[in-house]
Amino acid sequence: MTVDEQLDYLRKGCAEIISEDELRERLALRAVQGRPLRVKAGFDPTAPDLHLGHTVLIRKMKHFQDLGHTAIFLIGDVTGLIGDPTGRNSTRPPMTREQILENAETYKRQVFKILDRDRTEIRFNGEWLLELGTVGMIRLCANATIAQLLERDDFTRRYRQGKPISLHEFLYPLTQAQDSVALEADVELGGTDQTFNLLLGRELQASNGQLRQIAMTVPILEGLDGKQKMSKSLGNYIGICEPPEVMYRKVMQISDDLMYRYYELLTDLSLAEIERMRKDAETGAAHPMKLKHDLARRICTDFHGPEGAAKGGNVFRRVVQNKEVPAEMPELDLPPEMRGQTVIRIDKLLRSVGLARSGAEANRKLRANAVSVNGVKHREMSYDVPSEASELVLRFGKKWARVRL
Amino acid sequence: MTVDEQLDYLRKGCAEIISEDELRERLALRAVQGRPLRVKAGFDPTAPDLHLGHTVLIRKMKHFQDLGHTAIFLIGDVTGLIGDPTGRNSTRPPMTREQILENAETYKRQVFKILDRDRTEIRFNGEWLLELGTVGMIRLCANATIAQLLERDDFTRRYRQGKPISLHEFLYPLTQAQDSVALEADVELGGTDQTFNLLLGRELQASNGQLRQIAMTVPILEGLDGKQKMSKSLGNYIGICEPPEVMYRKVMQISDDLMYRYYELLTDLSLAEIERMRKDAETGAAHPMKLKHDLARRICTDFHGPEGAAKGGNVFRRVVQNKEVPAEMPELDLPPEMRGQTVIRIDKLLRSVGLARSGAEANRKLRANAVSVNGVKHREMSYDVPSEASELVLRFGKKWARVRL
Repeated sequence: MTVDEQLDYLRKGCAEIISEDELRERLALRAVQGRPLRVKAGFDPTAPDLHLGHTVLIRKMKHFQDLGHTAIFLIGDVTGLIGDPTGRNSTRPPMTREQILENAETYKRQVFKILDRDRTEIRFNGEWLLELGTVGMIRLCANATIAQLLERDDFTRRYRQGKPISLHEFLYPLTQAQDSVALEADVELGGTDQTFNLLLGRELQASNGQLRQIAMTVPILEGLDGKQKMSKSLGNYIGICEPPEVMYRKVMQISDDLMYRYYELLTDLSLAEIERMRKDAETGAAHPMKLKHDLARRICTDFHGPEGAAKGGNVFRRVVQNKEVPAEMPELDLPPEMRGQTVIRIDKLLRSVGLARSGAEANRKLRANAVSVNGVKHREMSYDVPSEASELVLRFGKKWARVRL
Repeated sequence: MTVDEQLDYLRKGCAEIISEDELRERLALRAVQGRPLRVKAGFDPTAPDLHLGHTVLIRKMKHFQDLGHTAIFLIGDVTGLIGDPTGRNSTRPPMTREQILENAETYKRQVFKILDRDRTEIRFNGEWLLELGTVGMIRLCANATIAQLLERDDFTRRYRQGKPISLHEFLYPLTQAQDSVALEADVELGGTDQTFNLLLGRELQASNGQLRQIAMTVPILEGLDGKQKMSKSLGNYIGICEPPEVMYRKVMQISDDLMYRYYELLTDLSLAEIERMRKDAETGAAHPMKLKHDLARRICTDFHGPEGAAKGGNVFRRVVQNKEVPAEMPELDLPPEMRGQTVIRIDKLLRSVGLARSGAEANRKLRANAVSVNGVKHREMSYDVPSEASELVLRFGKKWARVRL
């Protein structure tokens, strides 16, 4: 590929590139030197539970790998070791090194569904940040001014609103910038909310006599509702470990507009190809429902391979399109005593949610092949809850219920 | 002494005590516990060249010692190890540990003219600050907010004027506060420009489960002109290592108003005694000139003992009051080639400043006892320049010159 072709491939789905000219020059320079670009993206060390929103960034890392470059998956372990030092956030206690390494393993299981292992460096910033020490931290902090840091959008807003900004929060952009120096990053990727930090990395590299990294930001992905940011807490997400039939069904429920957006941010298709699709749909040359099936198949394939995608499609067609499942059914929460269990007693669940009047009735229906879970017949007493599943659709004879996990 | 008597003694010459009630309680508490108060004051690790302006603070430390308490002379070696990390200040390169220890020795030589060695702890904050490391620094910084730090007078002013404040400058108040925690200080002394930092120490102690230190500030001493802050660069200072005759003469040149101020800030006399003096002078019961001689004698005694004070007085009376020295004489700078020399060739100096027409004439006059330096006859070719002397008053036969060092 020529440099301009590479640039076209990389530009797709980016919110901003600072600057495209520099990226072009860097691609040309490294080509001449025969060295791959070093493409950094930072991740926090808490237990990951990745959804498609995260994959926009990871996929951009992969695009660089597709062109032969090196992706650096940087885990901010120092942040994890610190936790929330103000003690205001009880969900962020300091983590142990073991926890962090364990989370790194969980990350790997998830991200190598997208990234190429051979072109990925996994690094921990404790490697160089812990060496800085007291003196190094003070010296590092000499590289930014208060006025400059207060210009970061979220800091500006909080300062104006009189909401407290703790001094240690000002240290993080600097340590993130130091990461770029230590890694000699050519490119740093981040969400649009990371622009400030990425630019600070450029400055710190320049004052350390390095070439400045190119800052590339990707947009925040909208959730299934097409409005709000995809997030687990809003329930509008597709987790990358969800079973294929759930993934497939969730993709099928998005709007046509959102479908093109997902094509752009969640597949490797070029902008030209996506534009052609949209035109075909408008002229009637293609049916949007077919395009949506294609998207669902592509996304399922990414995480479950062609077989998983086929399964997802089959379940969808059988259960949803053939109207085997009623459109409306009672929605319930999992009984508290079953929460967090990886194996549940299905007879107890059926009675607990009110589908079966007794354990005996539940057992009879199970033996009579009259129970199914998520579209699949089930005969055992115990049921292995798929990790990352968000709901169980229960059929009990002619009665139905949707149980939120 | 009762607690209230102690309080009276300590209150003298203070700009502010936050709070007096707490100081009263602390004195009472430590008396019951049989433990001396720990009284901290911080000094920077650059080569000290102390003048009377500094002694206001050191004398307040001594007042605590007079009451049996412990003075902690804290040297900020971490700051010294860092220098000016922005590189904008060429006079503040990082110092070596050896330089810092050497400066500490110079400090000791100077401050033990006032402080009681047995009740002084000399400490270096590197002891605990270097142990903090990267993680400890970030945690420490969680104890203050940006808005709070921007409230410090000088930071407010610079921020409003659009002058840069480097982030590392925000770390220093926190490390100073950490010093108070590490030392378990009961009291911290500082100039009025230190109030903010002293108060931050109180907060950090409280959040570390300690009693909060009492913040005591002393005023900035005016120089000999009675207007501007005493400072070496303004030339309106009395160095604590200057020869007694220079000290004595400089004290004698201050105004009567300034004399009472110096009595308050530079002697151990009580406010009541000073008030009585002022009244006596007003009613004619005492002569201000006599009071000024008394002040000069007291100050000389502090740094040169009774003999030095006697010498200073004698030289002053002989040279100045008996008009042995002309009121007006040419003032000149030391020739550049002699600057920084501890021993100078007096014959060359006499010729260089134009008193002698030739080296031969200079030698003749030296042998003829016709040369004096600072009021003392001199016959040798070489002259040992007293450390900290600010000028040499040269007599050459009937000609005079004042040479600034």
